[in-house]
Amino acid sequence: MKIDVHTHIMPEKMPNWTKKFGYGDFIHLEHHHPGCGKMMKGDTFFREIESNCWDSESRLVDCEKHNVDIQVLSTIPVLFNYWAKPEHCLEISRFLNDDIAQRVEEHPDRFIGLGTIPMQDSELAIKELERIKNELKLPGIEIGTHVNGKNLDNPDLFPILKACEDLDLAIFIHPWDMLGGDRLNKYWMKWLVSMPAETTTAIMSLIFGGVLDKLPNLRICFAHGGGSYIGTLSRIKHGFDVRPDLIAVNTKKSPYDYFGMLYFDSLTHDKTMLKYLIELAGFDRVCLGTDYPFPLGELEPGKLIDSIESFTTEQKDLLNYKTALNWLKIDSK
Amino acid sequence: MKIDVHTHIMPEKMPNWTKKFGYGDFIHLEHHHPGCGKMMKGDTFFREIESNCWDSESRLVDCEKHNVDIQVLSTIPVLFNYWAKPEHCLEISRFLNDDIAQRVEEHPDRFIGLGTIPMQDSELAIKELERIKNELKLPGIEIGTHVNGKNLDNPDLFPILKACEDLDLAIFIHPWDMLGGDRLNKYWMKWLVSMPAETTTAIMSLIFGGVLDKLPNLRICFAHGGGSYIGTLSRIKHGFDVRPDLIAVNTKKSPYDYFGMLYFDSLTHDKTMLKYLIELAGFDRVCLGTDYPFPLGELEPGKLIDSIESFTTEQKDLLNYKTALNWLKIDSK
Repeated sequence: MKIDVHTHIMPEKMPNWTKKFGYGDFIHLEHHHPGCGKMMKGDTFFREIESNCWDSESRLVDCEKHNVDIQVLSTIPVLFNYWAKPEHCLEISRFLNDDIAQRVEEHPDRFIGLGTIPMQDSELAIKELERIKNELKLPGIEIGTHVNGKNLDNPDLFPILKACEDLDLAIFIHPWDMLGGDRLNKYWMKWLVSMPAETTTAIMSLIFGGVLDKLPNLRICFAHGGGSYIGTLSRIKHGFDVRPDLIAVNTKKSPYDYFGMLYFDSLTHDKTMLKYLIELAGFDRVCLGTDYPFPLGELEPGKLIDSIESFTTEQKDLLNYKTALNWLKIDSK
Repeated sequence: MKIDVHTHIMPEKMPNWTKKFGYGDFIHLEHHHPGCGKMMKGDTFFREIESNCWDSESRLVDCEKHNVDIQVLSTIPVLFNYWAKPEHCLEISRFLNDDIAQRVEEHPDRFIGLGTIPMQDSELAIKELERIKNELKLPGIEIGTHVNGKNLDNPDLFPILKACEDLDLAIFIHPWDMLGGDRLNKYWMKWLVSMPAETTTAIMSLIFGGVLDKLPNLRICFAHGGGSYIGTLSRIKHGFDVRPDLIAVNTKKSPYDYFGMLYFDSLTHDKTMLKYLIELAGFDRVCLGTDYPFPLGELEPGKLIDSIESFTTEQKDLLNYKTALNWLKIDSK
């Protein structure tokens, strides 16, 4: 059994929001020939994608090929639209969430859905959270590593996170709108340097902002094996030890004390780093995640986990699906 | 025998450059009571430091305590002054380099010096490189991870790196002016998230910019065990494999192929990460470095290396001093 907690999807057809709202560079899809689509950001070409980005059936074919039983579907982060007017972001979020819920309804044994919400407006965000939970029956949401420059310890975001805890919704945190500016445009560094740094920033903000102390029942999973967090954690811990005046301002607990609370996907591409992540976080806190259907993901889902001979069958079961069910609080599928 | 390749120093007395030049926020030191100093950035308090930041004798007392035989002295990166007018940066660089050379002259068996140069002006930089080599007899320089936003693959910087190769000068690359903006001001994240990302940016720029292919005899050592590079390298390699159109634009070689060319200090604070760094780079490419005298450094120089029982005495000798001599091309001290 395999559940892939990190897969992205978008609707096959979306309104041209840029035209509709009269501003901004919203994403829409142009289907220029069968099986291919151009993601357009306003009028600008953003990325070529294939049908497995929007077509459930294509995805299921890929799943068969790689023995993936269930995909957890989340929106492509470029569709978060946190920068838009809140009511417009809400409208798009509802559209995206309905699309994901529809797919789950069509294939309840093959898909689990995560919602997206207008993080820039806590009132609207919470309204949509309630709909995600009560109407759409999704077990969680995906959010970005920041909201228009506000890190996840920002008081404006706290009510949203609190509502997730109250509603018992799992959270998947994915980097977007990556830090570093134009310096990191070359060599895909926004994806290779900034994304991992974004995730570390998110983890540190939640820990040292005291958010996790206030909301101890949040179930958060971080993309890309926690980004650069694991490889730099000892530096962070040393910083915590020697300059508590700068770091331990909202919590006195060491970053290592939070491992029981944090989930991570397995997307490290690296045996040593995956083993180290698991040594720190535990088999019951790491879930198979591949970033499907994008090329920077694990192209053969579960291959890395499978390749580590020292893991027992029980441990691999945790990584491959049991921890995912635990994170999502789903008994079984 | 122990050589610490990563220690910072500044002169005890410096002119108030801000007053002298009539602009900018240059660093100077205010000695408010014995053994303590305030680093001032223009008129603003920047950091409290102790006498071991500027006083050779205090440093040697600390060296005795921790069995450090030799410190490699480099300027505190906030004194790079790449943002200043080139002729002013040159003036300050000369002042700093003379100070370091003087200390080496006073304690030739205990100190090795690295120079600093005005990277914002290749002509002046090369002039000072020649003085560093021929007059001051220093074996290398320290530079930042970027120069006013120009990464190390920028063509403006190439003549300087070429001159280092021609003059056979070692290079120590240290993060400064860290990316990420105001979002990373809290929890010391500029030091804990941005610094590691800076170093990865520098390594990627030198590799994928084709600089190392053009200058194969450069001897470069990266601070902080390469920052976040080692922990995210497999992601970088996977990116290189799947999107060569974005990454392999100037070199077709895998990032793993460059390990023989790159030196790293040992400052990981982490047994697993140090072992992984060495597994990748080799014992003959990793040197003891502590960031002395700053608290984020290894407070007991060499403790981490000593603590790894699986390393043989010969391997520890490489880490503790032999690799440093090799990097600096010094026969012995």
